[in-house]
Amino acid sequence: MQNLKNCQGLAPVFLIRSQSSRISKSIIPSLSVWDGHLSSRWRSTGGHGRQKYFSDRMPKFRFALAGLLAGTGAVLAYKHHQGKVEWAASSAQLPVTQTSALPVYTLEDVTKHCSLDSGVWVTYKGEVYDITEFVAMHPGGDKILLAAGGALEPYWALYAVHEQDHVLEILSEYKIGVLNTEGLKKQESANTSDPYSAEPTRHPALQINSLKPFNAEPPASILSDNYITPSVIFFKRNHLPVPRVDPETYRLEIEGLPGGVASLTLSELKSCFPKHTITATLQCAGNRRSEMNTVKQVKGLNWGIAAISNATWSGARLRDVLLHYGFGPEVAAKAQHVQFEGLDRDVSGTAYGASIPLNKAVSEEGDVLLAYEMNGEDLPPDHGYPVRVVVPGIVGARNVKWLGKIVVSEEESKSHWQQNDYKGFSPGTDWDTVDFKSAPAIQELPIQSAITHPAEGTSVDSSDREVTVKGYAWSGGGREVVRVDVSIDGGKTWHVAELRTGDKGQHPAPPPPPGKAWAWKLWEIDIPIPHRARELEIVCKAVDSSYNTQPDTVAPIWNLRGVLSNAWHRVKVKVNEDLKGEK
Amino acid sequence: MQNLKNCQGLAPVFLIRSQSSRISKSIIPSLSVWDGHLSSRWRSTGGHGRQKYFSDRMPKFRFALAGLLAGTGAVLAYKHHQGKVEWAASSAQLPVTQTSALPVYTLEDVTKHCSLDSGVWVTYKGEVYDITEFVAMHPGGDKILLAAGGALEPYWALYAVHEQDHVLEILSEYKIGVLNTEGLKKQESANTSDPYSAEPTRHPALQINSLKPFNAEPPASILSDNYITPSVIFFKRNHLPVPRVDPETYRLEIEGLPGGVASLTLSELKSCFPKHTITATLQCAGNRRSEMNTVKQVKGLNWGIAAISNATWSGARLRDVLLHYGFGPEVAAKAQHVQFEGLDRDVSGTAYGASIPLNKAVSEEGDVLLAYEMNGEDLPPDHGYPVRVVVPGIVGARNVKWLGKIVVSEEESKSHWQQNDYKGFSPGTDWDTVDFKSAPAIQELPIQSAITHPAEGTSVDSSDREVTVKGYAWSGGGREVVRVDVSIDGGKTWHVAELRTGDKGQHPAPPPPPGKAWAWKLWEIDIPIPHRARELEIVCKAVDSSYNTQPDTVAPIWNLRGVLSNAWHRVKVKVNEDLKGEK
Repeated sequence: MQNLKNCQGLAPVFLIRSQSSRISKSIIPSLSVWDGHLSSRWRSTGGHGRQKYFSDRMPKFRFALAGLLAGTGAVLAYKHHQGKVEWAASSAQLPVTQTSALPVYTLEDVTKHCSLDSGVWVTYKGEVYDITEFVAMHPGGDKILLAAGGALEPYWALYAVHEQDHVLEILSEYKIGVLNTEGLKKQESANTSDPYSAEPTRHPALQINSLKPFNAEPPASILSDNYITPSVIFFKRNHLPVPRVDPETYRLEIEGLPGGVASLTLSELKSCFPKHTITATLQCAGNRRSEMNTVKQVKGLNWGIAAISNATWSGARLRDVLLHYGFGPEVAAKAQHVQFEGLDRDVSGTAYGASIPLNKAVSEEGDVLLAYEMNGEDLPPDHGYPVRVVVPGIVGARNVKWLGKIVVSEEESKSHWQQNDYKGFSPGTDWDTVDFKSAPAIQELPIQSAITHPAEGTSVDSSDREVTVKGYAWSGGGREVVRVDVSIDGGKTWHVAELRTGDKGQHPAPPPPPGKAWAWKLWEIDIPIPHRARELEIVCKAVDSSYNTQPDTVAPIWNLRGVLSNAWHRVKVKVNEDLKGEK
Repeated sequence: MQNLKNCQGLAPVFLIRSQSSRISKSIIPSLSVWDGHLSSRWRSTGGHGRQKYFSDRMPKFRFALAGLLAGTGAVLAYKHHQGKVEWAASSAQLPVTQTSALPVYTLEDVTKHCSLDSGVWVTYKGEVYDITEFVAMHPGGDKILLAAGGALEPYWALYAVHEQDHVLEILSEYKIGVLNTEGLKKQESANTSDPYSAEPTRHPALQINSLKPFNAEPPASILSDNYITPSVIFFKRNHLPVPRVDPETYRLEIEGLPGGVASLTLSELKSCFPKHTITATLQCAGNRRSEMNTVKQVKGLNWGIAAISNATWSGARLRDVLLHYGFGPEVAAKAQHVQFEGLDRDVSGTAYGASIPLNKAVSEEGDVLLAYEMNGEDLPPDHGYPVRVVVPGIVGARNVKWLGKIVVSEEESKSHWQQNDYKGFSPGTDWDTVDFKSAPAIQELPIQSAITHPAEGTSVDSSDREVTVKGYAWSGGGREVVRVDVSIDGGKTWHVAELRTGDKGQHPAPPPPPGKAWAWKLWEIDIPIPHRARELEIVCKAVDSSYNTQPDTVAPIWNLRGVLSNAWHRVKVKVNEDLKGEK
């Protein structure tokens, strides 16, 4: 197999995307050519594949090459393998050069190359790639091996991040041949079902960061309009397609307790355990990631400030369920974690998974729920219907939705999301040096706050005399927000905002017991506009009951996954002159 | 009484300190005079008394006045009331002008004025002051009322902060008369005992911040030499004189549990409850306060970076003791706090006191100890012999020493230190606007780290190629330090330090259970010295298991009490040229 791969060096194929808008198809005839010089230039970028993966699309570089091709009279051919699956209709399609020099493989040839030992081959739109060398560089880790010996399409359909030009460019470097006609037909028939075809309808106000899987946040401007976020605009963070779960046949399995595997119906969960209600804020680890991208590109969805929302959750306490099924000191002596598995699965059958420390799961103070209601109604499909875990004070990623299984274990969840994602690193750590084992899985989140009003780039009138600033603040681990400082001069002077634990006009909620402040606080303040100010740099920072504060700036907390983005939030607004006043 | 006070406006007395080194006594004859103009200028500063209290000693202003006095031929008299008590031998003594215009009072006259209703009079070195108007401005809060109707000396002897020129200047503004001879004699005889005469001997390495009460820290350079800080150099933070406690007659009282007040001897505490040992770091809320002073003067001891130390502590679990004496759900339904009273008392009999949340006190995970051993030996006198509370993860101030009483209560401790001290405020809050009720008492402390080597202002040799940087890191609430980032370019680029949980060569301690990382981590890293660097700005910042980070700079977390100083620690060192290398 290595021979075949090495042959590629003798007959490399240069690929260029047909979608580059400035490259007119008319200047690119339908014959293939290979240009040894250019090809080796492309290949020489292979070692930088990772940087390319995260860099901008580098249009200038691509257009320069296209120009060079045209200048040397290069003649390129394009073929569009029009798959029947929905993803194939997207804008990112691979043009393929036709050359008789390319070996033809059967699907069986590909299937044999399904591991690092045998080599890792994949197919994409009828072409065959040996990606063995790329596996170690894959930003998504060894999850890429799930596709080994088969088609990439089903996986890329799950992770829309692949639908980008430079991903196709990287892939092109590993091409070794084409699939025979029979193999192509087999694949196409297997790829016709879109795992996202049954997604629920969503609220049009949501700002979508990713359609498949669905990830969206409400507009910041409406986020703090309600102390309890309406479910329809509560931020959505799905890792996989939303599973359709029949409440009649739903079973929750519980492992790791005396007596073997327990199985619980939805009605048993509702009727056999006391219903407990908490108000808890959930926040994605990637909330405010977009600010990190302004420092240096990170990997992940480009969340604004609204990957955080607050709701009431009702359900059985996890503690009660575990005690009912035999949890006791003898289990506690060994186990240290409680793992959760969702019913949302990828095409290989791997479920979304996460775990939390045992003491959070079983302590009276932990308030961990097996929730079946959100804001007084059945959980919506996007939020885990019929049952999800709500782990108040803990990063959203551990609040597993569509809960299928609970495992009391000596070990953390082995899932990708627990082991190789949702961890924080030093700003000095990059994809070449990162060791995911060196950092703990994110559980409690640090103190956070952001400004929801006014919006960046808007204006205030100096005739108003004051600017009203609004926002939210929350901290992980049940630590209560005790103060929010707001500045309108970039952080030189500070004012203390008024905090709210309910909607205006409502009775405020009683103060939470120490360590159980699961819900955010909304805050507001009117600050006099300084005379002759032309611009305000509004800044907020919060303090929690452990007197933790937010860091001043983003760069020193930058990390390659763009998580834990909690520097002071800054919003610049213009001050319009008081024309009336000057008259 | 108000009449008398108002009369002061008619016959004010100008006071000037005799100790001002540049004012020659020879030019100040022994007759008194009053100068209405100057006096009114002094009085006009009364409204700024608070600022003056914390400002520098303003020598220029004082000397300018002295010069003015000399220029107008003013003639001043000085009288030194030489008290027999030790404090009277200190450098801060009040010179008193002699004038027949001053009313003479008896001790009984003074005693009657012991409240805000009757007016607050105090005496100091035989003179009488009506400080009613000053009470609200007293930086130490209403503790000043303890002295109402009596002598200031015993209180000032406890709080050496008063031994400063500007304190005497403020006091002088409230003078209304002198004590008669009989009253003076009575007071002097009462003041002969120095409450600090029986203090233990201390290690000469300690850097003393305050002698009475004793407050000292080890040199930063030796702080991180031992993972377990030797008791003799463990930082000392006493609020009052060290009490001498006889272990034979020692009794620990426990209130607020069914069955009334319980009383426990030392041997019962040791024999009736399992002995439990933890390693825990204690940190003063004021650690690194000196850095806040560089932004703007704060009130409090000028701690460096070493008001933090780590020790092993052995004793009975508070939880076990409370359960033994009847703590149960019916108590938990009402109580929310556990108060502690020390046996260290001020002259009025008021004990040092503090409280912690009930759930910390009684939870299995809380690890709160009634400790009788430190580093394997009886507690030293400075650390609470025979019994102290160790509340791991919680600010030092709640780890009450010389423990005399435990009260399970619905309320927090009413002590000054719980209510009106050890709280954090916004940088925009000053002594005019502060409302101590608006902030929670500090319990858990935020993430902290500092550089113990190299020291500020020292040099490294470029021929060494690398600079070795060492320090400590710790976080409150049992949150484990998971990473320390170190920069030598002021925070532009960062390196990850190696963490230690024991001394070099020792087996590292096993990782603590989640939420029970009570002990600090020491850290170290060798960083290449950049070519041609002439100065390094070394910076450290730590991250805890909740991914809380330290703020970048001091000013935005500045607060009037100078607590919670946990910005990045910065140390500048020079790089000596590599002369050998250049030859």
